Amino acid sequence: MRTTPTPGYSITLRLEITNQLGMFGKIATAIGEAGGDIVAADIVRAGKGAIVRDFTVNARDDLHEKTIVDTVKRIDGVRIIHVSDRTFLLHLGGKIEIHNKVPVKNRNDLSRVYTPGVARVCSAIHSDPGKAYRFTIKRNSVAIVTDGSAVLGLGDIGPAAALPVMEGKSMLFKEFANIDAFPLCLSTKDTDEIIRTVKYISPAFGGINLEDISAPRCFEIEERLKQDLAIPVFHDDQHGTAVVTLAALFNALRLVGKQLEGIRMVISGAGAAGTACCRIFREVGIADIIVCDTKGVIHRDRTEHMNAAKKWIAENTNPRMVKGSLSDAMDGADVFIGVSVPDILLPGDLKHMASDPVVFALANPEPEIAPEDAHPHVKILATGRSDYPNQINNMLCFPGLFRGLLDSRAGTVNEEIKLAAARAIASMVDEKGLSADYIIPSIFDRKVVSTVASAVSEAAYRTGAARQGK
Amino acid sequence: MRTTPTPGYSITLRLEITNQLGMFGKIATAIGEAGGDIVAADIVRAGKGAIVRDFTVNARDDLHEKTIVDTVKRIDGVRIIHVSDRTFLLHLGGKIEIHNKVPVKNRNDLSRVYTPGVARVCSAIHSDPGKAYRFTIKRNSVAIVTDGSAVLGLGDIGPAAALPVMEGKSMLFKEFANIDAFPLCLSTKDTDEIIRTVKYISPAFGGINLEDISAPRCFEIEERLKQDLAIPVFHDDQHGTAVVTLAALFNALRLVGKQLEGIRMVISGAGAAGTACCRIFREVGIADIIVCDTKGVIHRDRTEHMNAAKKWIAENTNPRMVKGSLSDAMDGADVFIGVSVPDILLPGDLKHMASDPVVFALANPEPEIAPEDAHPHVKILATGRSDYPNQINNMLCFPGLFRGLLDSRAGTVNEEIKLAAARAIASMVDEKGLSADYIIPSIFDRKVVSTVASAVSEAAYRTGAARQGK
Repeated sequence: MRTTPTPGYSITLRLEITNQLGMFGKIATAIGEAGGDIVAADIVRAGKGAIVRDFTVNARDDLHEKTIVDTVKRIDGVRIIHVSDRTFLLHLGGKIEIHNKVPVKNRNDLSRVYTPGVARVCSAIHSDPGKAYRFTIKRNSVAIVTDGSAVLGLGDIGPAAALPVMEGKSMLFKEFANIDAFPLCLSTKDTDEIIRTVKYISPAFGGINLEDISAPRCFEIEERLKQDLAIPVFHDDQHGTAVVTLAALFNALRLVGKQLEGIRMVISGAGAAGTACCRIFREVGIADIIVCDTKGVIHRDRTEHMNAAKKWIAENTNPRMVKGSLSDAMDGADVFIGVSVPDILLPGDLKHMASDPVVFALANPEPEIAPEDAHPHVKILATGRSDYPNQINNMLCFPGLFRGLLDSRAGTVNEEIKLAAARAIASMVDEKGLSADYIIPSIFDRKVVSTVASAVSEAAYRTGAARQGK
Repeated sequence: MRTTPTPGYSITLRLEITNQLGMFGKIATAIGEAGGDIVAADIVRAGKGAIVRDFTVNARDDLHEKTIVDTVKRIDGVRIIHVSDRTFLLHLGGKIEIHNKVPVKNRNDLSRVYTPGVARVCSAIHSDPGKAYRFTIKRNSVAIVTDGSAVLGLGDIGPAAALPVMEGKSMLFKEFANIDAFPLCLSTKDTDEIIRTVKYISPAFGGINLEDISAPRCFEIEERLKQDLAIPVFHDDQHGTAVVTLAALFNALRLVGKQLEGIRMVISGAGAAGTACCRIFREVGIADIIVCDTKGVIHRDRTEHMNAAKKWIAENTNPRMVKGSLSDAMDGADVFIGVSVPDILLPGDLKHMASDPVVFALANPEPEIAPEDAHPHVKILATGRSDYPNQINNMLCFPGLFRGLLDSRAGTVNEEIKLAAARAIASMVDEKGLSADYIIPSIFDRKVVSTVASAVSEAAYRTGAARQGK
């Protein structure tokens, strides 16, 4: 269903074009007919018999890139000199680097940032470990920890292949919250080994962001690290998604005039995100939740395909003991939350929902139901995509959340802190702006980060998680 | 013996001074008499009855700082508003940060550095792991790994207190070699756990710099990591010191006209640096080496206070089977290498050395013998200090060494590579410049890094350690 060319698939074709009237139009038309979106056409050099031009073209995906190149190749009078991919070019040598806050140009500099002066700073921290927050990067540093086992839609691609995503995440931390986050891609998938490694590397960090670790290992890893470490540990795929989804839900229910306590909800997906969503929705008082996985509805009598997380779900949801398929669960539902796989929801399922149906189809990049198919039957639709309204994106949470945690030197992320973040995100959409197409702010609204950070910091103080004197 | 005030101990006194003739002179004189070195005196504000001035003063050490403050406190008509320490001020919030190589200002940027574009880069690395060097920070990243067990002269101060040193080291990597080095301070001192942790975090790094890990654990940790990892592992306290010391020795012997093969050498210290020096000196052909530790000369018959490293020393040195104390060993020695503790060498020991004695007293900050005491008896003296000629400093090695290793994508650091680095450092002092006071280049000579990097890279190709196509 991806129909829009995106700058994520942007290629530059360097073409040698015979000097002949109408060639530019011929090329532009061919690219357009192949579905490519021409972003720029620059002259590289003009010669006697030929001109060299760079055409920068957005495509839909890999295959589409190839189609466009093949189309251009077939035009008489055009020779492809080379094709470069702007995304790969941008990744050359990595996307982040270390920057020194002060220069080291002479002995005076050296004697302060390094020996002998640094010894005094070390001694001060040795005497009072709390001073690490004052005199080291710990004040502003987050470790982005992954084992590369559940990366984007790619699955278990391993630590090295996961690194570009983690570097990208580090960039978002820096760009949106001025946080120094460093990627640690681990070459082990063993739960105990991951826990030990994170504990050992923790002294230099003010927080741990677990990322793209597959369920159910992610639950135990996070839980045990939270118990053992005196710095906040946050698995973004779980709680980032839960917080932002809750924020969107607050506003959606505001719009349709329903109360949390009274609604019926269906969650599709019992992985990291689904489980965390389920837990946070229970906490805010939603009593009637049904969770479905690939085997259908989870209920107390189900014995097959269960794990510890699903057992918790079975015991804490589905009070009406519904059994069967996702379609069965959808009967009379007010809200559908999809954090699963593409195309599992049918228009027919939506027809049996309660009045003013709210559907969050968050599978990415292909939602549980195509927006075009869902729209006639729903009141409010949200997806994970940027090319439709109401994008549910973790970027609305993690930069501001960690900013608030670091600012307050929080020792943990508790439930109150997550709820505060969700309320802060929801609050960015005011009564006047609220509409079916605008229940959640834009990820590029810079006020979101500071608002979330303040709310998180405030909640950390209120609940005793903060350690920084106000 | 530290008599010179240093910018490493620099304080700024903000003083409210009664408006009265001669006050400035009175204050300056008092600070001078207390041994303080006035670097600057700035007016903050001038009022009716009083003037506020900042005096920036270099001191010798902590205690000396306090003496200066007390002295100023006693001057009539002077009130101390506050005293700030420039070294601590500079450390506020840490010394390094993350820097994004490209901005993330809009959806186009986002779609290339993060989703959806990044997925293609991940897939490319998943298909061909070698591409991690092309498209990620691995090309230019080094992990600075410590357990904080042997930090500067401070000893076992732990991982958090070691962080300012590691951040400083990261700054030197960046400033001198444009390498992105990130500090990992581990909260374990267990050999196996350190090894496992470093292995697990290795995928995102192009090299591992082990730092300030105490002997004898450092030997096993490095050795086993070298066997297990396909990226270079280098314990700077061992081999950085050995390489730079060897470079200085090359030039010292050139100056006194002696050959490596014929000399008698005494090494004081059998820790990380002493052992590594001993090994590299054996490799270049020095046959007559005697190593002493706190218990005296190490020899084949000694059974007490031994470990694996010292056993190797016993079996590979001391061919004349000298026994006894350091003084006994010094008899007839051409070269003394001290990598141990202050003030263990006596002027009398130097008198029994061979002609043109070469003494490298590298204990830091206080050498094995005070330069003033040694000078009358030696031909060439080197120390680890910046305030005397011939400073033996690891900074001459590690930036250029790792630059060369990363540039050639070396998989290991072999002996040829270390020798190449030593020869490159030695070559920076030309025949014309070579003198007893100039056997080793300045750490601020920027040509050192590029010369060492080229030599290392060349050696990596020659020995098959390099993996980057030339």
